[in-house]
Amino acid sequence: MLPGEFPVSHWDDAEAALAAADALMPALRATPPEQFAKYLTRFAERLEARAAELVEMAHLESGLAKAPRLADVELPRTTGQLRQAAVCALSGAWALPTIDAKLNIRSCYMSIGPVAVFGPNNFPFAFNSVAGGDFAAAIAAGNPVIAKANSSHPGTTRLLAEEAFAALGDTGLPPATVQLLYRLHHSDGVRLVSDHRLGATAYTGSRGAGLQLKTAADLAGKPIYLELSSINPVAILPGALAERGAKIAEEFSGSCLLGSGQFCTNPGLVLLLAGSAAETFITQVKERFEKAPVAPLLSAAVGRSLTASVETLRQAGAQVLCGGQALPAPGYRFANTLLRTDAAAFLAAPEKLQTEAFGNVSLVVVARDAVEARRVLETLEGNLTGCIYTDTAGSDDKLYDDLAAVMRVKVGRLLNDKMPTGVAVSPAMVHGGPYPATGHSGFTAVGLPAAMRRFGALVCYDNVRPARLPALLRDK
Amino acid sequence: MLPGEFPVSHWDDAEAALAAADALMPALRATPPEQFAKYLTRFAERLEARAAELVEMAHLESGLAKAPRLADVELPRTTGQLRQAAVCALSGAWALPTIDAKLNIRSCYMSIGPVAVFGPNNFPFAFNSVAGGDFAAAIAAGNPVIAKANSSHPGTTRLLAEEAFAALGDTGLPPATVQLLYRLHHSDGVRLVSDHRLGATAYTGSRGAGLQLKTAADLAGKPIYLELSSINPVAILPGALAERGAKIAEEFSGSCLLGSGQFCTNPGLVLLLAGSAAETFITQVKERFEKAPVAPLLSAAVGRSLTASVETLRQAGAQVLCGGQALPAPGYRFANTLLRTDAAAFLAAPEKLQTEAFGNVSLVVVARDAVEARRVLETLEGNLTGCIYTDTAGSDDKLYDDLAAVMRVKVGRLLNDKMPTGVAVSPAMVHGGPYPATGHSGFTAVGLPAAMRRFGALVCYDNVRPARLPALLRDK
Repeated sequence: MLPGEFPVSHWDDAEAALAAADALMPALRATPPEQFAKYLTRFAERLEARAAELVEMAHLESGLAKAPRLADVELPRTTGQLRQAAVCALSGAWALPTIDAKLNIRSCYMSIGPVAVFGPNNFPFAFNSVAGGDFAAAIAAGNPVIAKANSSHPGTTRLLAEEAFAALGDTGLPPATVQLLYRLHHSDGVRLVSDHRLGATAYTGSRGAGLQLKTAADLAGKPIYLELSSINPVAILPGALAERGAKIAEEFSGSCLLGSGQFCTNPGLVLLLAGSAAETFITQVKERFEKAPVAPLLSAAVGRSLTASVETLRQAGAQVLCGGQALPAPGYRFANTLLRTDAAAFLAAPEKLQTEAFGNVSLVVVARDAVEARRVLETLEGNLTGCIYTDTAGSDDKLYDDLAAVMRVKVGRLLNDKMPTGVAVSPAMVHGGPYPATGHSGFTAVGLPAAMRRFGALVCYDNVRPARLPALLRDK
Repeated sequence: MLPGEFPVSHWDDAEAALAAADALMPALRATPPEQFAKYLTRFAERLEARAAELVEMAHLESGLAKAPRLADVELPRTTGQLRQAAVCALSGAWALPTIDAKLNIRSCYMSIGPVAVFGPNNFPFAFNSVAGGDFAAAIAAGNPVIAKANSSHPGTTRLLAEEAFAALGDTGLPPATVQLLYRLHHSDGVRLVSDHRLGATAYTGSRGAGLQLKTAADLAGKPIYLELSSINPVAILPGALAERGAKIAEEFSGSCLLGSGQFCTNPGLVLLLAGSAAETFITQVKERFEKAPVAPLLSAAVGRSLTASVETLRQAGAQVLCGGQALPAPGYRFANTLLRTDAAAFLAAPEKLQTEAFGNVSLVVVARDAVEARRVLETLEGNLTGCIYTDTAGSDDKLYDDLAAVMRVKVGRLLNDKMPTGVAVSPAMVHGGPYPATGHSGFTAVGLPAAMRRFGALVCYDNVRPARLPALLRDK
C-alpha cells in the first residue's frame, strides 16, 4: 500500500469544471495557435526538469520498470508528443484549410470546445489524461481539457498536473485551460460526456465502461472517441515458420511479455497452420514464456481481470500450455501464460475465444488449412492491429493475399513481419480501427496532426468579410 | 393522383441487398479509382441524354418548376456533382495519404463498405439517394450504395436508377454496386443501418426518423451521417437596416419563398433590433409575402407538417402577420406566412419557438437591445447556417463581433450579407453543423472531396512490403 490520499470527485466538481471551461471558450477561440504551441513546449520542458521524481512515482504506482521504459522510453515519448503537437498547432495543417477564392467560401476545422479525457491504467505518462497524446492533441486544437485521472496512478497524475498548471502560468493561458478530476462515479462520467457544454470526449480503457459512456454521448449528439479492447491477431504463414521460426518465436515472446503484456497492441492471438513447424514454434514460445521473468502487473484489478479472462478462454476450450494462474507476492503477478486451441474449436466459440486477456497471456490457434485460417480471420471483431509474417522467397505470397484481404478490413494498422506492440509517434500512424476496437473507424488516437481532428468542428465562412476571417483562411 | 405503382420493400429485399453488396466488397476494393471515375462520368452523360423525361417526371411528382429549377439548376447541379466526384476519385486527395518513408508507415482513408443512402423529399435530383451528392461521394470513395427511395418521387427515382444501372453495364462495374430499395418499414430501416455488413449510412430528412436511425446505428458502432432540421437564423443589424433595409427585405423574401421555402437552408428566423427601421423592414417583408405567388408544396404531408408547425409557433406566442393557413387547390399550398415575436417571449419558450416550419414560413424575433439579441442566439440549437447582415460604413462592426462569436459555434456555415439558401458545390462548402442540425459536427454532406471522408475508414500499413501497398501509398 502506497502512502498518500487523493480526492474523490463528485458531480459538483465536474459541474464546476464544465462551467469554467465553457466560460473560457470565447477567450480560447481568440487565442492564437502560437500560444498553445508555447504552452505545450513549456510543459514538455517542465516535465523534463522533474523527470526523476516523475519516474520514481510512476514506478512505485505502476510497477513498470524505470529502464527500459519509464525514464528512457515513456517520458521522452510523452514530451516528444507534446512538442510534436506544438509544431502541428503552429502549422495549422490539421485544420485542412480550404479556400475557394472565386466564390469567397472558406472552410477549416476549429476547436470543438472542452474535451474530457479519460486516461488508461497502462501508460502513466504517454496516455495520461493530463499529459498524454489525447491531452496534447486536444490542447493543440485549441480546446480546454477536463482530465479524469486514472485511479491506478493518482500520484503521478498529480505531479503531471502540477506541471501542466504551472506551464499555463508560464505562458499566459487561463488556469481553466487544464482541469483535473479524480475518481468519478460512473453516473457522473455519463453526465460529463453528455453535457451540453462539452465539445468531445476521448476515452482509453475497458470496453464495458467505454461503451456506457458512448451510449450516453451518442444520445446527446456529443462526439466520443474510444480506444477499447483489442487482441491484435498475428498470422505466421508456413514459409515464414520454415525460414525463421525460431527468430519469430523470440520476437513474438518478447512482444507478448513486454510490460507484462499490458499494451492495447499486445498480440493476444497467433494463427498458425498445422504442421511440424507450427509445433516447433509453439514449443519454442512455451519455453521462452516459462523461462522469462514475470514482471508485476499494474494493479490487483488487472490481476483479477486476467484470471477471469484466462478462465473464460479455458472454459471455451483453450488448453493451457504454461502458466494459467496468479503468482505469489511480491507484487500482483500472473504466470506468463500460453494457451492453445484449434481453428474448429475457435470457430465454434469465436466470441468467447476472442476475450481480451489484458496482460502476459496469448492464445495460439492452429488451423488445419488455408480455408480454415481464413475463416478464423473472418470471425474476428474489429482490432487495432493485425499482422502477417511471410517468408522472403515468396512461397507465402498467395496465401498472404488471401488472408490480408480479410485482415485489412478488420484492423486499423496492418503489419508485415513485425510485432504490433510499438506504436510509433509518426504522422502516418493509425491507432484506431473498426468497432469495437474503437468507437469510429475514421479516426486515430496517435499520429499528429490526424489525432487533432477528433477535437475539431468543420466550419465554413461564406462571403465573410476579410478582416473577420480566422488567420488561417485569409488570402495570403 | 399520379399514375404508376411502385414496390414496397421488405426486410428480405434489404437482406438481399446487404448480402449482394457485402459479397462485392473484395472485388470493389481491388477496383482502381479510374473505374469509379468513368462510371460517375458515364452516369452524368446518361442523365443529360434523358434530361427532358427526368425533368417532366420530377415536375409532376414534386410540383417544383422546370425553370428556373429542375431543368436549368438542379439537374446540371446533379451531373456536375457526379463529374466533380469523378475528379476527386481520380486524384485520391480525399484519402489524405500520409507516408512516413523513414519508418515505412503509411496511412490513408479507404472505402468503408456498403453505404445506405436515405434521400430527402425536397431535391428529386441533387440529393436523390440514387444520383445525388451522398451517392456520388459514396461511389467515388469506392463503396457500393444501397439507396432508399424517397416516397415523394418514386418515378423520378426509378428513371435515375435505370440510368445508374445502365451506366454500371457501360463501364464494367458489377450490378450490385448500386441497389435500390423502395418504401421500407421503419423497423427495417433500423435493421439496415445497424447491420454488421453495412459500412455507413447517410440520411437527409426529418429529425424524428433520423434520430431513430442514429440510435440504432450508434449502438451497433456503425457510422451514420445525418442532415436534419435547421432554422438558419439571420440577424440583420441596425446599420444594415438603415443603409439598405428595402434591398435586404427583397433578398430575404426571395430566399424565404424560393421553392416554397422547402430547403434545409431556408431562413426560418430573422433577428432584428427594435426600432423604426425594424418596423419598416417587417412591413416590407409582409407586403412581399402577401404579393408573392404561392407555389405548391412537395406533398400533402409537407402541408400537414407546416400547418402543425405554425400552430406550435402560435401557441408559443408568435403572432401571425400574414398567411397562417393552407390554401385551396390546385396543389397542396400554404399561404406565405410571416410570424413575429419579441425576444423576451422567445427566451421564455426557446424550444417551441425554434420549431422548424419546413416551407414558406418565417419568424421575426425583435430584440430590445444587443444584450437580448445575444441571448436569443445563445439559446439556439445547432443549425446548418447562420447569417449576419451589417452596414458597409462600420457602425455595426462592434455588435457583429459580439453576435458572430456566439453564432459561429451554433452553425456549420456562417454568412455575411448573403442569404443561406444557395449551397454552392464548392470544395470549401460545409453543409453540416452541430447536433441536432446533423449527427456530427466534423463532417459535411456537400463539398468534395471532404464529403467523401464520411465513407472512408482510416487505415495504416506498417512495414508492409512495397508490392502489397495500395497504389496511393507507394513511393513515387
